[in-house]
Amino acid sequence: MLVRPKPGILDPQGQAVESSLRHLGFDVGEARVGRLVDVDVPTDDRAEALAQLERMCEQLLTNPLIESYEIELERP
Amino acid sequence: MLVRPKPGILDPQGQAVESSLRHLGFDVGEARVGRLVDVDVPTDDRAEALAQLERMCEQLLTNPLIESYEIELERP
Repeated sequence: MLVRPKPGILDPQGQAVESSLRHLGFDVGEARVGRLVDVDVPTDDRAEALAQLERMCEQLLTNPLIESYEIELERP
Repeated sequence: MLVRPKPGILDPQGQAVESSLRHLGFDVGEARVGRLVDVDVPTDDRAEALAQLERMCEQLLTNPLIESYEIELERP
């Protein structure tokens, strides 16, 4: 699961990364920092896996007021 | 950029997520928590963008002893 601060939500970590990259001489636009959560789900059923991961995001892994999430499925 | 703790490296955040998900009744295997860093790079040249993002990972965004990274390019 990829969890990102929603557009418009203050992201101090992203600002710090942006400013550090500029100090190092990189030409960058905006930087945003989020979380990456990899979870093994013991099912071969993609729809079932997706439904479970969605529930995990909603119940525990994200704050829907300030974060959005994206789910990417991978086979082991 | 997707930054993950390398296999074998202790990941207390991942352990906490794993244990919380089980407490909520989810049937999950291992969970690992990493960082997601989105950076706008003002170039249309994919090879150039990739080279720059790699340098950012190596100079600032990751600790190569304990983390691995993956770069995904996206057009705005």
